[in-house]
Amino acid sequence: MSRFWSPLVHRLSPYVPGEQPRVEGLIKLNTNELPFGPSPAVAPAIEAAAREGLQLYPDPQSGALCQALAQYHGVPRDHVFVGNGSDEVLAHAFAGLLKHDGPLLFPDITYSFYPTYCRLFDIAYETVPLDGAMRVHVEDYRRGAGAVILPNPNAPTGVGLGLEAIERLLAMHPDAPVVIDEAYVDFGAQSALPLIARHPNLLIVRTMSKSRGLAGLRVGYALGQAHLIEALVRVKDSFNSYPLDRLAQAGALASLGDEAWFQQGRAAIIANRARLVAGLEGLGFAVLPSQANFVFARHPSRKGAELAQALREQKILVRHFNAPRIEDFLRITVGDADQVSTLLRALGSILAG
Amino acid sequence: MSRFWSPLVHRLSPYVPGEQPRVEGLIKLNTNELPFGPSPAVAPAIEAAAREGLQLYPDPQSGALCQALAQYHGVPRDHVFVGNGSDEVLAHAFAGLLKHDGPLLFPDITYSFYPTYCRLFDIAYETVPLDGAMRVHVEDYRRGAGAVILPNPNAPTGVGLGLEAIERLLAMHPDAPVVIDEAYVDFGAQSALPLIARHPNLLIVRTMSKSRGLAGLRVGYALGQAHLIEALVRVKDSFNSYPLDRLAQAGALASLGDEAWFQQGRAAIIANRARLVAGLEGLGFAVLPSQANFVFARHPSRKGAELAQALREQKILVRHFNAPRIEDFLRITVGDADQVSTLLRALGSILAG
Repeated sequence: MSRFWSPLVHRLSPYVPGEQPRVEGLIKLNTNELPFGPSPAVAPAIEAAAREGLQLYPDPQSGALCQALAQYHGVPRDHVFVGNGSDEVLAHAFAGLLKHDGPLLFPDITYSFYPTYCRLFDIAYETVPLDGAMRVHVEDYRRGAGAVILPNPNAPTGVGLGLEAIERLLAMHPDAPVVIDEAYVDFGAQSALPLIARHPNLLIVRTMSKSRGLAGLRVGYALGQAHLIEALVRVKDSFNSYPLDRLAQAGALASLGDEAWFQQGRAAIIANRARLVAGLEGLGFAVLPSQANFVFARHPSRKGAELAQALREQKILVRHFNAPRIEDFLRITVGDADQVSTLLRALGSILAG
Repeated sequence: MSRFWSPLVHRLSPYVPGEQPRVEGLIKLNTNELPFGPSPAVAPAIEAAAREGLQLYPDPQSGALCQALAQYHGVPRDHVFVGNGSDEVLAHAFAGLLKHDGPLLFPDITYSFYPTYCRLFDIAYETVPLDGAMRVHVEDYRRGAGAVILPNPNAPTGVGLGLEAIERLLAMHPDAPVVIDEAYVDFGAQSALPLIARHPNLLIVRTMSKSRGLAGLRVGYALGQAHLIEALVRVKDSFNSYPLDRLAQAGALASLGDEAWFQQGRAAIIANRARLVAGLEGLGFAVLPSQANFVFARHPSRKGAELAQALREQKILVRHFNAPRIEDFLRITVGDADQVSTLLRALGSILAG
């Protein structure tokens, strides 16, 4: 606390990201990173960008990257916005699209950055409880709202929502912006992309951190009709002209060009997820049906915090949220085959102990 | 305009950065970049970072870089904050430190992003006119204020302010945060760094874009007492957990380690600036005394817009601001020896024509 702080600072409740410890031999299954690196085309593209022109500002609009994303997703160039990670894209969306007279709606169990943004931008919000099976029930959103935001699949549950449900939500609130946060969509959920053309209120937010193995590069983007993208551009150009450095633009562009790597990576994670789920169920865990690169699992007789701590003692990090309804769950990132085996062995010995 | 926009978006007046055209053979003296690349230690550091760990999130606090900056500047670690370019650092400072009951004060002629931030964060401000010689006159700031921000040297004038004047300003407003924006300080002005220890209201903002030749990398930072830094951290952690990617952290760290390159680069720019100023004066320009890597110059008988256009036709870009008091000035970046010669020749032929 300081008398020099703007009054705003006192009302903030900063987000706490998963730990990024630098410990040798740690198995890190706490922040939903891929267990393998990005496309091998990424490093050479970055190296070329590092060797020439670093003294020059980057393209402030990341034009080449936006153009490539537009082509990749089959939308016009003016339907694409890029930012410094999807968190920055989300921040601009909260400021530019989600603050209205009615409350912003989002699930009670969801990405915990959402209420943090609401405090930063002074946005009134109401949370809508997941149903008993921890699923989003779209009919529960049939109420007065200034805007809606929803991850699909949801985090930290991993549970996906079908396109038909998303379309009902869009039609329910035709005058309210609806943001679908598709950070994890590439691991098996359905993208709302086909709905953009006929729903002017739909904004999709994506990240290259997860399915493209580029968490270290900070590239996120949004897709939606031009009038929504324009709001993001106006906020961005009032905040930071050059959010993506030259290296991130080059690396992201190279990643987009390697479809084979992308498809192999997704398939590997989906296969490892099936093994992880089967193994956890074999140990007695109840596992929510996941369409993400993580699973959300609960043991009927062990506390989540206790299991997370026991795993930590074996140098395995998973994420535990000390929050109502989910305090007995663990969120476990889908690792590679060895990591899945090591985790299952460790849990087996902890449960036997 | 769209009914989906937050009301905020309608009141924004987005900043317009200098052009970044991709034209072969262009002499780019419009955005104050260095005419040569960064330390040769930067590219190998980036390449190493690109080859390992890109799938992992960066250190959210950029700890190693903050530690190195603290050591470089001789301040404690908790006196340092880093962001995605100094524009992001400034944005967080506007949100977290510069919004109070009294108006924010800044010069009428200054970095044109300041009023843009004020609109974004709904901050009331008053501009304080530069004196007739386009200098900041500190006594003019002796009035009711919630906070003050001032570049030193000022932009786009290039005129610096002595430490004694800065200290008078700090003492004049002991209860108001005072931000000194030192984007260009390394080219000859005095840093306010020695004043931090005894002025709890002083925040200094720096960038690696200019004097370290890293505009393409997007790294800025702030120095100040811990309670001021804490406000920035709280805003940052409510906005984007990971503002600096792994490559930017690695490259910035390598740049800091090469003091010889840094000192040579500064000296080269200062020498070229002297030649540029002498040449412009020889052509009849009035040139403000510059402590930056650009000069602000006006010809007694030619319009600024007309000269900028004539230079553009010779593939030389300089910056012209169509704004009161400065519409007849050109802001010209100090380039390398050849660029200075080419510019002076081009101006000579334009003025003779």
